[in-house]
Amino acid sequence: MAKPPYLIVIGTVAIDELSTPFGVRQTVFGGSASFFSYAASFFSKVGVVAVVGEDFPDEYRKVLEERGIDLTHLEVLPGKTFHWKGKYEADMNSAITLQTDLNVLLDFKPRIRYEKMPEFVFLANVDPELQLSVLDQVHGSALKFVACDTMNFWIQNKRDFVLKVLGRVHAVFMNDGEARQLTGEVNLIKASQQIHNMGPEYVIIKKGEHGALLYSHEGVFIYPAYPIDSVYDPTGAGDSFAGGVMGYLASARKVNLKIMKSAIAYGTVVASFTVEKFGLGRLREVKRQDFDKRLEVLKKICKI
Amino acid sequence: MAKPPYLIVIGTVAIDELSTPFGVRQTVFGGSASFFSYAASFFSKVGVVAVVGEDFPDEYRKVLEERGIDLTHLEVLPGKTFHWKGKYEADMNSAITLQTDLNVLLDFKPRIRYEKMPEFVFLANVDPELQLSVLDQVHGSALKFVACDTMNFWIQNKRDFVLKVLGRVHAVFMNDGEARQLTGEVNLIKASQQIHNMGPEYVIIKKGEHGALLYSHEGVFIYPAYPIDSVYDPTGAGDSFAGGVMGYLASARKVNLKIMKSAIAYGTVVASFTVEKFGLGRLREVKRQDFDKRLEVLKKICKI
Repeated sequence: MAKPPYLIVIGTVAIDELSTPFGVRQTVFGGSASFFSYAASFFSKVGVVAVVGEDFPDEYRKVLEERGIDLTHLEVLPGKTFHWKGKYEADMNSAITLQTDLNVLLDFKPRIRYEKMPEFVFLANVDPELQLSVLDQVHGSALKFVACDTMNFWIQNKRDFVLKVLGRVHAVFMNDGEARQLTGEVNLIKASQQIHNMGPEYVIIKKGEHGALLYSHEGVFIYPAYPIDSVYDPTGAGDSFAGGVMGYLASARKVNLKIMKSAIAYGTVVASFTVEKFGLGRLREVKRQDFDKRLEVLKKICKI
Repeated sequence: MAKPPYLIVIGTVAIDELSTPFGVRQTVFGGSASFFSYAASFFSKVGVVAVVGEDFPDEYRKVLEERGIDLTHLEVLPGKTFHWKGKYEADMNSAITLQTDLNVLLDFKPRIRYEKMPEFVFLANVDPELQLSVLDQVHGSALKFVACDTMNFWIQNKRDFVLKVLGRVHAVFMNDGEARQLTGEVNLIKASQQIHNMGPEYVIIKKGEHGALLYSHEGVFIYPAYPIDSVYDPTGAGDSFAGGVMGYLASARKVNLKIMKSAIAYGTVVASFTVEKFGLGRLREVKRQDFDKRLEVLKKICKI
């Protein structure tokens, strides 16, 4: 039995292979849970619920351990680690998936064994049935706030399960394309209203270089992305954005519109660092103060 | 000889025909100079330098006259008024041009005959050679600030002239696609830096539903669009945005980054009204105070 972190993420830990206009990397440490937890660790104690294969390098494990991330729920199964191969062309806003090898992810049945359950939970983009099984486990009096992510594949192929998840979370993170796909509504304000009606109190639409949009019954919040003139690798931007948001919320121990706005602002600056190098390269160089500094600049940039 | 307005626009006055997912209109009063001047008139005295045909309805002329817009330079030539037929499909961000009848625009040779030259000049999207001929006429000690717009057609077919115009203006308004086309640079920050290097001190990138980006040597400014859940007709959004910006600047009688930021914020809210009805329909219903009210809401929406 391990000590409970305030915040856990269930998602993927991956070995990526990717090419962008700025270079090619045969093996990059990736995965939604890796980016999320690394980003969140600047704000809060965070634990990873995920699976890797026997080939998972010690060196990658140490990257997370160095940030004090709880890995007691990082299962090692016989076989190979989840592998994603993708590329970005001139338009760095959208990745092109070349290959996905689920490997050990096929046998992943997450079991939350913390003595005391976490208060904040993030269900990264995995099969919505898996998200539901985690929701069943963390459901209880300790739980304060659950958020989820999803993707076009699940919206298209497991829509009913996606809707079940949405009915049980406090917040959802989605990109603009997914929000339009889920609702069939092009106007993002209308789309986020409709998603709000599906359950989540906070609907957070990620618009890449155009920033983020929050819809809640308390009000709307729009925040621009930090202007970056050298986007090297957008992989993990969305997950580290969510990690910054959820880490900030977990550190506040409660959620309301005011706190959520600050959380989104921090998520925005975290993601702006993520894209400046391949994988976790840039985030490994920065300190908590760097987020504060960049946020001060961003506040100025969008202030009249 | 007419009394000089502070601000003039050279552009088109048109009879449009358009369809959006919300309806079809056989004849709508349109054109860049119409939208621009109508928007600017809430902030400053403005004059229109444009041409119409003998078919131009009195009713349209009155729409502009009612706002006190100076029409002494609205030439009437034998023939038909410029006519644009377009449609918007589900994605209201981009118009599909179905037909363009230049008509009297083919014979348009603008002559600025004001006794005292205007201080602020906007060269809306017309042939860059025409823009240059106006620049030659307004050039002089009275002139404080010239801005221009352009479009993909001129960038592709008259690039050298577009560059000549850019070398002689203080500000340029462009949409994101045009900025990328002109520079061959996908990253908007880099693209706007490059355009800045072509001449204009202020580079204003219009991103439609994603707001606006300003690049200047004094700093960067990013402002979101006002969230509208019922975009009926995006025609004229960009021109009325520019009208709001330039009208505000002309009313301030000078330009610096601080004033430019407020100007862009006002342009943003003006454009948000424009899209709520066909043509000038919505702008004809609002008052100056409505802009202030909506701007207060927008400030709140993007404030942490």
